[in-house]
Amino acid sequence: MDAFIISIGSELLTGHTVNTNAAWLASQLNMAGVGVSEVRAIPDNEGDILRALNDAAEKTTFVLLTGGLGPTNDDITTRALCKYFGSDLITDSKVLEDIRLFFKTRGRDPGSVNLRQAMVPEKAARVIRNPYGTAPGLWFEKGGVSFIAMPGVPHEMQNMFSFKILPEIRKKSPGRHILHRHVLTHGIGESFLAERISGWEKSLPPAISLAYLPSAGIVKLRLSASGEDEEELRNLIGEQIAGLRKIIGEFIWGYDNDTLGQVVGKLLRERGLKLGCAESCTGGYLSHKITLIPGSSDYFNGSIIAYSNRVKEEILGVPAELISGKGAVSSEVAGSMARGARKFLGCDFSVAITGIAGPSGGSGEKPTGTTWISISSEKGTISRKYTFGDTRERNIMRAANAALAMLAGAISDKFYNQE
Amino acid sequence: MDAFIISIGSELLTGHTVNTNAAWLASQLNMAGVGVSEVRAIPDNEGDILRALNDAAEKTTFVLLTGGLGPTNDDITTRALCKYFGSDLITDSKVLEDIRLFFKTRGRDPGSVNLRQAMVPEKAARVIRNPYGTAPGLWFEKGGVSFIAMPGVPHEMQNMFSFKILPEIRKKSPGRHILHRHVLTHGIGESFLAERISGWEKSLPPAISLAYLPSAGIVKLRLSASGEDEEELRNLIGEQIAGLRKIIGEFIWGYDNDTLGQVVGKLLRERGLKLGCAESCTGGYLSHKITLIPGSSDYFNGSIIAYSNRVKEEILGVPAELISGKGAVSSEVAGSMARGARKFLGCDFSVAITGIAGPSGGSGEKPTGTTWISISSEKGTISRKYTFGDTRERNIMRAANAALAMLAGAISDKFYNQE
Repeated sequence: MDAFIISIGSELLTGHTVNTNAAWLASQLNMAGVGVSEVRAIPDNEGDILRALNDAAEKTTFVLLTGGLGPTNDDITTRALCKYFGSDLITDSKVLEDIRLFFKTRGRDPGSVNLRQAMVPEKAARVIRNPYGTAPGLWFEKGGVSFIAMPGVPHEMQNMFSFKILPEIRKKSPGRHILHRHVLTHGIGESFLAERISGWEKSLPPAISLAYLPSAGIVKLRLSASGEDEEELRNLIGEQIAGLRKIIGEFIWGYDNDTLGQVVGKLLRERGLKLGCAESCTGGYLSHKITLIPGSSDYFNGSIIAYSNRVKEEILGVPAELISGKGAVSSEVAGSMARGARKFLGCDFSVAITGIAGPSGGSGEKPTGTTWISISSEKGTISRKYTFGDTRERNIMRAANAALAMLAGAISDKFYNQE
Repeated sequence: MDAFIISIGSELLTGHTVNTNAAWLASQLNMAGVGVSEVRAIPDNEGDILRALNDAAEKTTFVLLTGGLGPTNDDITTRALCKYFGSDLITDSKVLEDIRLFFKTRGRDPGSVNLRQAMVPEKAARVIRNPYGTAPGLWFEKGGVSFIAMPGVPHEMQNMFSFKILPEIRKKSPGRHILHRHVLTHGIGESFLAERISGWEKSLPPAISLAYLPSAGIVKLRLSASGEDEEELRNLIGEQIAGLRKIIGEFIWGYDNDTLGQVVGKLLRERGLKLGCAESCTGGYLSHKITLIPGSSDYFNGSIIAYSNRVKEEILGVPAELISGKGAVSSEVAGSMARGARKFLGCDFSVAITGIAGPSGGSGEKPTGTTWISISSEKGTISRKYTFGDTRERNIMRAANAALAMLAGAISDKFYNQE
């Protein structure tokens, strides 16, 4: 059983949009044991859509379309599907109700353009209601092939696919499984990691493949296996991960979809502790990673973003002579910021970051990317220096990840923060 | 003149690699006046490659292939090209020299597997040497169609395309240009925008096409035109944008690659003003958007992230009875936070956000997504209520964008912040 993905939208052919929808769908399908035979991106053009539907129906059992279901004139997927299936449009009263409700809860009038989205092909076997937007999904069956059209807005598509489409696809394709597990590390570069685990990697059973996925100081190791018995695959991968823990345990901070923000949050929650931050060069990004986690208000008191020295002095209580004497990017100032944040935000743990994000501001002694991170708790203050690169956005991300890893280590008394 | 992109590699069909190569190529081609009619991602499989070559040759003048030229066994693009063009393989002595040199400068032995990459189809019109890797590019001509195969490693492909392929493509398609311009709006939904500009849209000259690209409260309008005279296209699109400004000028905050963070920064810098924030539900994301801009320390003093009520009271000076009486998510508390931030951060303009990001915390009266944003300056305090959706991450993004749009409006005395 396999699938053919048709991505519809001119923005995919001008390079303005990267086709992340196709990659996301492909990975979801793979995990359900459904391979993808082709991904085709085409413009909002009836002829191209009809040709793709014909080619797909010849090759595969599931044809997944994204995009072109919206309310504006450039959205013509529904029209092409009507032509392909020889269908008329009818009004779906439930979808009409959904659209009206969608706008009502937002205190707005839907207008005639939006209501038009309640017109669906009468030959659709199923109309899939969209709780996060106004364009419904459409499911057709013809000659043993399922054709499933979804909106192109990523979060609408992902929600619809995960909860309303994937369960049906699973029912139709029992037996085959592809299993992936991720081991998440911090504090060791990709090539050093590869050297450290080369013996383990060489002795992996042939059913398991390994990939290195690095980003902003974090290296994910992906172990993949395919077979018929899901339980067996799970055990096989589990054994290998246990072996990996013995070699690089001190660098592992999580698995699969864990985030460092979650890991830190869980540690704080378990211990009933409160956290606060003082950020300079990361400018709010560290706090954002912490507060992306639902329920983070239970353990996060807040943060002082001290971009100017005046705020460092007046709100965090960093002595002016410390800044002029040691420089704003120094162990002493980072430590003082952390202690100030802990006091003024009234928390058990605090973390402070001060660094040179770039592109300007670096010097011979302190090049762009130089960053000090300090953690303060009743046990005292610990500070570390990091030297990242010269790209502003990446420096911000790497500093936030390093701070979270250091924090997780400090709260749990483990040590997975070496660089 | 248009192009067909064939992306070869199983990793594109498992979702492990997002097809950024295709987006990059498409944007380069577009800028050179060559449209892309289709992007097709297929596995390393001879049958699929041959079918794609046939389909592509029927439709287009340039067929661009990436991937599958490497030294390992799963790389079969060269073999498929030999079959398609009825060609044998011969050793290219210059490529052989390149490969030997590549490994020599890295202090390693190439080995027989790598040397195999010097075998190229004898019918290739041109072998394109690769300064950044070992796999050469291949250029074929047949029936007026150019077939160009490049390595899949992004930086090798980009370098080869920019310096060795694009100049040749430009020679073959002289004078043809595709021009895109983006008009960036905030504060009006896609469908309302479409209704508002429907008359303008209907009277667009046939050379111009329009697309709506919505994300997190921002709708980008893309105007595209193709023709022979770049200057003429620029004027043609410019005239239409001037018309658009008359209809929806109050919603337009920028053009092309502008970000709201840049626009706000520019307004502050021009006026010599300082900014500070008080964030609750956005938890640092607003400050992050502001501080992503290089040089933002010139006008951004800092921010108080007041996640707990205690921080709202003690650092921002919000009266406790205001929070208990009106609720933390209220016009009064937002206004008080903004005034507190302006005072304690010592700035000219401040913006405060308080809302229910979700997923929990909502009520009948104040559903998840309810958000108050206030701006304080010496002119006074203005506050607005927004009702976003029920997804935490999207609510955070939409609130930050709304705050920046509101701020830009307040600083410039324009009004592009209505919802």
